[in-house]
Amino acid sequence: MPSETGTATPLDPENLDALAELGQQLRVDSVRATDAAGSGHATSSMSAADLVAVLFARHLHYDFDAPDLATNDRFVLSKGHASPVLYAAFKAAGAVSDAELLTFRKEDSRLDGHPTPRIPWVDVATGSLGQGLPVGVGLALTARDLDRTDSRVWVLCGDSEIAEGSVWEAAEAAGALHLDRLTAIIDVNRLGQRGPTRHGHDLDSYARRFRAFGWHTIEIDGHDVHEIDAAYREAESTRGEPTVILARTIKGQGVRAAADHEGLHGKPLKDPEGAIAELGGVRDIRVSVQKPKDSAGQRNPAPAPLDLPRWDKGGDEVATRDAFGKALTALGTARRDVVVLDGEVGDSTRAEFFSKEHPERYFEMYIAEQQMVGAAVGMAARGWRPFAASFAAFLTRAHDFIRMAAVSQVSLALCGSHSGVAIGEDGPSQMGVEDLAMMRAVHGSTVLYPADANAAAHLTAAMADIEGISYLRTTRGANAVVYGPDEEFPVGGSKTLRSSSEDRLTVVAAGQTLHEALAAADRLAAEGVAVRVVDLYSVKPVDRETLWKAAEETGCLLTVEDHHPEGGIGDAVASAFDDGRPAPRLVRLAVRNMPGSATPAQSLAAAGIDADAITASVRMLVN
Amino acid sequence: MPSETGTATPLDPENLDALAELGQQLRVDSVRATDAAGSGHATSSMSAADLVAVLFARHLHYDFDAPDLATNDRFVLSKGHASPVLYAAFKAAGAVSDAELLTFRKEDSRLDGHPTPRIPWVDVATGSLGQGLPVGVGLALTARDLDRTDSRVWVLCGDSEIAEGSVWEAAEAAGALHLDRLTAIIDVNRLGQRGPTRHGHDLDSYARRFRAFGWHTIEIDGHDVHEIDAAYREAESTRGEPTVILARTIKGQGVRAAADHEGLHGKPLKDPEGAIAELGGVRDIRVSVQKPKDSAGQRNPAPAPLDLPRWDKGGDEVATRDAFGKALTALGTARRDVVVLDGEVGDSTRAEFFSKEHPERYFEMYIAEQQMVGAAVGMAARGWRPFAASFAAFLTRAHDFIRMAAVSQVSLALCGSHSGVAIGEDGPSQMGVEDLAMMRAVHGSTVLYPADANAAAHLTAAMADIEGISYLRTTRGANAVVYGPDEEFPVGGSKTLRSSSEDRLTVVAAGQTLHEALAAADRLAAEGVAVRVVDLYSVKPVDRETLWKAAEETGCLLTVEDHHPEGGIGDAVASAFDDGRPAPRLVRLAVRNMPGSATPAQSLAAAGIDADAITASVRMLVN
Repeated sequence: MPSETGTATPLDPENLDALAELGQQLRVDSVRATDAAGSGHATSSMSAADLVAVLFARHLHYDFDAPDLATNDRFVLSKGHASPVLYAAFKAAGAVSDAELLTFRKEDSRLDGHPTPRIPWVDVATGSLGQGLPVGVGLALTARDLDRTDSRVWVLCGDSEIAEGSVWEAAEAAGALHLDRLTAIIDVNRLGQRGPTRHGHDLDSYARRFRAFGWHTIEIDGHDVHEIDAAYREAESTRGEPTVILARTIKGQGVRAAADHEGLHGKPLKDPEGAIAELGGVRDIRVSVQKPKDSAGQRNPAPAPLDLPRWDKGGDEVATRDAFGKALTALGTARRDVVVLDGEVGDSTRAEFFSKEHPERYFEMYIAEQQMVGAAVGMAARGWRPFAASFAAFLTRAHDFIRMAAVSQVSLALCGSHSGVAIGEDGPSQMGVEDLAMMRAVHGSTVLYPADANAAAHLTAAMADIEGISYLRTTRGANAVVYGPDEEFPVGGSKTLRSSSEDRLTVVAAGQTLHEALAAADRLAAEGVAVRVVDLYSVKPVDRETLWKAAEETGCLLTVEDHHPEGGIGDAVASAFDDGRPAPRLVRLAVRNMPGSATPAQSLAAAGIDADAITASVRMLVN
Repeated sequence: MPSETGTATPLDPENLDALAELGQQLRVDSVRATDAAGSGHATSSMSAADLVAVLFARHLHYDFDAPDLATNDRFVLSKGHASPVLYAAFKAAGAVSDAELLTFRKEDSRLDGHPTPRIPWVDVATGSLGQGLPVGVGLALTARDLDRTDSRVWVLCGDSEIAEGSVWEAAEAAGALHLDRLTAIIDVNRLGQRGPTRHGHDLDSYARRFRAFGWHTIEIDGHDVHEIDAAYREAESTRGEPTVILARTIKGQGVRAAADHEGLHGKPLKDPEGAIAELGGVRDIRVSVQKPKDSAGQRNPAPAPLDLPRWDKGGDEVATRDAFGKALTALGTARRDVVVLDGEVGDSTRAEFFSKEHPERYFEMYIAEQQMVGAAVGMAARGWRPFAASFAAFLTRAHDFIRMAAVSQVSLALCGSHSGVAIGEDGPSQMGVEDLAMMRAVHGSTVLYPADANAAAHLTAAMADIEGISYLRTTRGANAVVYGPDEEFPVGGSKTLRSSSEDRLTVVAAGQTLHEALAAADRLAAEGVAVRVVDLYSVKPVDRETLWKAAEETGCLLTVEDHHPEGGIGDAVASAFDDGRPAPRLVRLAVRNMPGSATPAQSLAAAGIDADAITASVRMLVN
């Protein structure tokens, strides 16, 4: 068994043949880790072992004692199921012990089935295939355009995952942006989970595609350490284009009973002892990973005072998307760590305002929302504060990336504009009426939905300091300014805009519907019916205290939302009453129809969420 | 103004020069429609007008009186914002009147801002870019492999949308599947919404990419009707490969003040009268679209009796995913209209079972969930009953396609396997804990979550008759069979598995947590605490009646779900109490931690949703 105490054999990185031995060690340790776990992807690790061995021994520059160094290279294991080979490499590098290696997939071990940033040398979680390369684009953009270091980004992909469209969004972005510090290594082992991949060992079918997207391509035998080393050197010296190395490999390489066999995906080997013997037994070769050469300069100077835009209460109507764009621009002046990405709709989301003032921190990602969020995740993983914006409806494209961003434990601000049926004429394809459900269900997320310009500005600024995934929902059309510019909007709070001791019911609204609720309340007041109005600008976390108080004082809560009835404001309000005390009377108005094109007012009326609908519902409920 | 009553000029389709006149008419009518609407995409329509004119006049085979004919060609306007040119073409074809054309984007008009199947000649809704080609793949597969007709599929794309990864998923699928009846026409007008596209008028940059994916490519001047016609003929005669026609066009073509100008996206022209004059004035050319030549044979014979698999109550433990796979296979035998798609995880979802029995109706879509759902939408639009399966976690990749499938008004069954933290060792990247929130918020959706094999089998069969988008959530691990094989599971129902007049609380669970709830109830019964247990197998619609009864009889409901607290079972149960009556005491247990790898039992315990956690919560709530 390998020693833990200094008797390891140091690798001579100049001796290429010794690298083959290291590859075998990574295989052996992958077999051992999956055997100890009783599950895991042994054969997928064995195909990649030589690729990883040569990378760690001779090409990666990384200080395991200082993973946050901007000058470190970045390694992303996009085929996250091959985690055993990564953990085996960490062991070879002296970063984890052999004992820890054998905790793989066990409770409380940081060596999860798929890598997560619970491990300090893992920048982003992988395991949902096709995400490593888009995130790698973000890391490479960060290195070149933000951190401005010479560090390289290495992404090891499987061949099955190349079918994901997100890979081609990344291929397009990296090629067009000339990210020559980015290298994709594709472990073409021919076998997916279920059987053969579409292209088998036809390396050129992949190469043709990447070349068409502006990549430099290299085809090699992925088990020949000399070819691997030469390919990495060629990638390092290639200028102006990202490089993809297409490595022909064998799944289960090194063990006859497993090599190139179908039906062994995601399983430990059946005869681990025999496999280890066939692989030459347990070794304890130690790799000295090279440290980065340069040190990066100081970045992100202390923030300057924030000079948010201000609007007069009761002044001209303003769209919250406009307020977002202006506040974001001001935030970018105060905070040099704020960066903005948009999916070719910056003129609509108003992220474009930021681009005029801070072009060096604005990234046009074109209509590729997965790549947009993937790039933002890469930037966030390196400590920048990205804001990524699109239509609320189209952020659904990036749902899996957003979900995984939470697993990656990054802090990322998203903005979805054009929410709800209130956009009117463009019709249902453009209406975000599912976004609150999507964003509330993200682990640790914060969901904000301002009703006016001042609220939007303050909440935009707040997002730069929120941990985890935060979401701002904005509205296309202009609405009244109902708050003064110095009003504060704490996350988790709400605003009670109409209130009296005579209130017979509370209308809980947010964003667009707040204005409908205020109009209804005024109309009802004229009829002698007092109703409370709460602006639920923080949809998650939700202001339980105010909602309980309203429930106790008015007995009935009517929620009104420009969103489907599921997962949005109605559900959020109901969730405030889950502490075991009897809940109040709850009624909800939401978008239950399939909207068509119409004016915004007609659309709100057709969905039954306008002032008329609220008024009618209140009349019914109080009588 | 054009006549409505037969004075239209019939087009001589042999006179190619007359097609240029038709193109001008489509431009004029696009200008008129957007002017009447006060919004809409005039310039995006004008770039595409000649492409549409030649297609309708000389190449499309379509019977406007019988849109459901299997032998009809299919035309998908992927750049759905150019709807005016489509509606103008419908008018030229005599399908809509000039008066209706001018109802564009108005309330109650079927001529929505982006096309939807409210129009009988529109198969699928478009407007979320990058979806037309994946759906076109589904339509082409339907024509070739299911309906077995010679009909062609024409998809008109914008150039901006080519940045979407979903387009490359479609390029990959169509190339690999040799869909030579599919033609993509790309209207390369150089300008996106916000400004220039990445590739401008560099047609070859697109052609290189498509060629690498196995497409035949043709580059043309998209305003030269002779070149367009020749390209369509070349596409029609190309065998073994899909064809992409890259058409160099000018946004706003034909009107000097608009042509190739930035900043005019999505707007009517400023001087419509001048523009119409410059375009040669209003015309009323009438196109006689060719009818399809062949008639298709009868398809989908009457269903045979359904012989569902059966499991003995209390027998061996069975995974609901296994039951799904077996039931789906039996369903495929009884119903010849059932087709199945999977994203290269059929061995896990068990969709693979179907492939063994019915390979001619099984479609392996590889790891490309957007294409998988897009293809299913195309098949559903043609009247087939697709079931598409992947891990619950990875269906989030297709969120936007699922959302749009609802707008397309298709009936589509989705199955998400490996739900929840109960999968254990694989860790958070593979755990679907947001899927219920996503699926509940889809318009008109049905969300089902069986706890045992018999429930899974019955609900799988039921999905073949559910209108709209339905979703079945399955579990990886085996669980007890708690129902007999003849039990019925109506959609919208629930099962009360433990009940007495002494019940002090109701535990509402589903799927994995039902088994935890039953274990807790048995343990509590031994302590003298009677609790009711409800199996909420129908999460949407939810069984309000049973939940109200439980609330009235037991006073308190405790929901337990292997899902995040937002948007799932807790929210669904709370929504049952939104009718204005005072709601009961509600408490929810859900996955609030960020899970790591561990055994399934440890994972359920760590999330606080196992029998221990339920027992402890009940003890606290009843004391």
